[in-house]
Amino acid sequence: MSSNSSSKAARREHFIAVFNTIRDQLVGYVREQHMPAEAVEWYTKNLNYNIPGGKLNRGLSVVDTTEVLKGRSLTEDEYTKAAVLGWCVELLQAFFLVSDDIMDSSITRRSQPCWYRNPEVGMIAINDAFLIESAIYHLLKVYFRDQSYYIDLVDLFHETTFQTEIGQLLDLITAPENSVDLSKFSLERHKQIVIYKTAYYSFYLPVALAMYMCQIPQSYSASAGDGNTLYPYTMARDILIGIGEYFQIQDDFLDYSGTPEQIGKIGTDIVDNKCSWCINKALSLADTPQRAILDENYGRKDPLKEEKVKEVYEQLGLRKIYADYEEGAYKTLSEKIAAIPEVDGVNTLKREVFTSFLNKIYKRTK
Amino acid sequence: MSSNSSSKAARREHFIAVFNTIRDQLVGYVREQHMPAEAVEWYTKNLNYNIPGGKLNRGLSVVDTTEVLKGRSLTEDEYTKAAVLGWCVELLQAFFLVSDDIMDSSITRRSQPCWYRNPEVGMIAINDAFLIESAIYHLLKVYFRDQSYYIDLVDLFHETTFQTEIGQLLDLITAPENSVDLSKFSLERHKQIVIYKTAYYSFYLPVALAMYMCQIPQSYSASAGDGNTLYPYTMARDILIGIGEYFQIQDDFLDYSGTPEQIGKIGTDIVDNKCSWCINKALSLADTPQRAILDENYGRKDPLKEEKVKEVYEQLGLRKIYADYEEGAYKTLSEKIAAIPEVDGVNTLKREVFTSFLNKIYKRTK
Repeated sequence: MSSNSSSKAARREHFIAVFNTIRDQLVGYVREQHMPAEAVEWYTKNLNYNIPGGKLNRGLSVVDTTEVLKGRSLTEDEYTKAAVLGWCVELLQAFFLVSDDIMDSSITRRSQPCWYRNPEVGMIAINDAFLIESAIYHLLKVYFRDQSYYIDLVDLFHETTFQTEIGQLLDLITAPENSVDLSKFSLERHKQIVIYKTAYYSFYLPVALAMYMCQIPQSYSASAGDGNTLYPYTMARDILIGIGEYFQIQDDFLDYSGTPEQIGKIGTDIVDNKCSWCINKALSLADTPQRAILDENYGRKDPLKEEKVKEVYEQLGLRKIYADYEEGAYKTLSEKIAAIPEVDGVNTLKREVFTSFLNKIYKRTK
Repeated sequence: MSSNSSSKAARREHFIAVFNTIRDQLVGYVREQHMPAEAVEWYTKNLNYNIPGGKLNRGLSVVDTTEVLKGRSLTEDEYTKAAVLGWCVELLQAFFLVSDDIMDSSITRRSQPCWYRNPEVGMIAINDAFLIESAIYHLLKVYFRDQSYYIDLVDLFHETTFQTEIGQLLDLITAPENSVDLSKFSLERHKQIVIYKTAYYSFYLPVALAMYMCQIPQSYSASAGDGNTLYPYTMARDILIGIGEYFQIQDDFLDYSGTPEQIGKIGTDIVDNKCSWCINKALSLADTPQRAILDENYGRKDPLKEEKVKEVYEQLGLRKIYADYEEGAYKTLSEKIAAIPEVDGVNTLKREVFTSFLNKIYKRTK
């Protein structure tokens, strides 16, 4: 069943159909434990409320990458497996978002109240987040137990989870919402938070999962007989972490520069004391008076103070600096991708995996 | 290095020495990710505050069971491996306790403020709980990656985690602290909560981990050539879930009957609306007027109301009913243990694994 030629909406619909199957399997497992109807209903609602409502970019990218690596349409079994891995990435993200919203005191998520803000839920949301995480490993076991790469999938989810949690810790202690201390900020700190909190799980994880499913080996010869060894997972990680960093810097800049029509929300990074690329770049360039303005006005719940921060951003020429950064990042990443030796054979890395990510992101305005 | 003959305190000290090693390894891993000192210190404090301060019964039981199964003192390598598995059980428990304390609005834990109650921590405790869980899989990989039973260990931790979370959900929706509805309670519901929330991780998990480490197979012949197949993990689970249920019923009864000198605290199950064995047994025996008293007085923050519930317990003869229950449970479990066929050979189940658990628990008053 090919989904390569189908429209974006049809691909999304196909992917969501798999969610309905796995949700029913997960709920079925809980029901088989002779849990009362009330618990089964709660778990069903938890999954329906928190898993499928996002953009699904991360989940869909597992399916897309698998197709690129195979170089052909997927069989029905291959599609199901790739989609299950995609949903496992979405489950991991939901586990983080449900709990991050509590930690950040967020109000809405995906155009509905955050799960913990539902009056009957409250702090039960913490355990609900755990149950979402456990669903990942239950599904991996159901669908991949017999595969030689099963343990690789499990290890990769563990490692990525750990990295994301380290990133979340770093973010929480660097930029607590109600205690502004810009001396903790730096471009280096920003980069570390972005790589650990976002890039590993959003960019490297989906591609590496597809690579394991396509049984790409840990290393292979770059060209027959020349002894030049290629490490495809290391190479993919290096490029995808770079793409993830570029994506988040862009996201940070769009929070500042994007109109509500473009980004679907009003940017709040300045008032929320976020460790954004914009403030870190500004801090690296500000003279003493500008630094004083940033220290006094950043992270305060006051639109006039927000305006003063924005004035410094404009004085420093942040728009031009961002545009230059974007060109440089695009060029560097393109060169890295072009340097991947493409080796004939079914189980090898393809440049298209990375160009498709990069081209979806380059100069996006929403 | 034998610890079989050493005193209880020395065994504990030996076990705690392994904690120091693994904590340093975990902190070392985070440091290797080039995390700033502030993050490394936070993670270190998280581990030191939340992991080693408990009774360590669950962790030590992995070591004890491994010795019983081997039938001899452990080599240094065996001791380290068994102790690491023991600490992984303690990490799993700490992951649950740190988060349960937030969900239950608890104040103290192990004679210190709950982690989230530290002013600088707050809701960051949620991510700290996640980091504790991730430590389990990092350690399993470091110590067991090359073992044939590595995937069995990982799968068992996942399954047990899922079961415990289902039990926690059931408990949270059955007995919310501030909304009393005794129609949700029943002895059957109590049993389900106890088995899922406590018995699997506290009793089956430590023993099954030791069994995997001792490479006990999934099945073997009960006696040479008679074709009678024994399933040691199923058999162990059946007995240990029974012991876990007995242990928790005893714990519930001690909360009611134990003196502060015995149990180290004042029982609060009645005022906290806990789904305890005592209230469920009372509900199953109460006549209409007694039921009305229980409905009106259970789960209220009022010592006079607590006293009225206790009066009903005494009218119903709960002390005698518990004593009879305990005798029956001990007899049933002893018979099940005696029915285990002991087969010669190093990789088989031993009755002593279970009798040692049962005898530690039988008629305990603290």
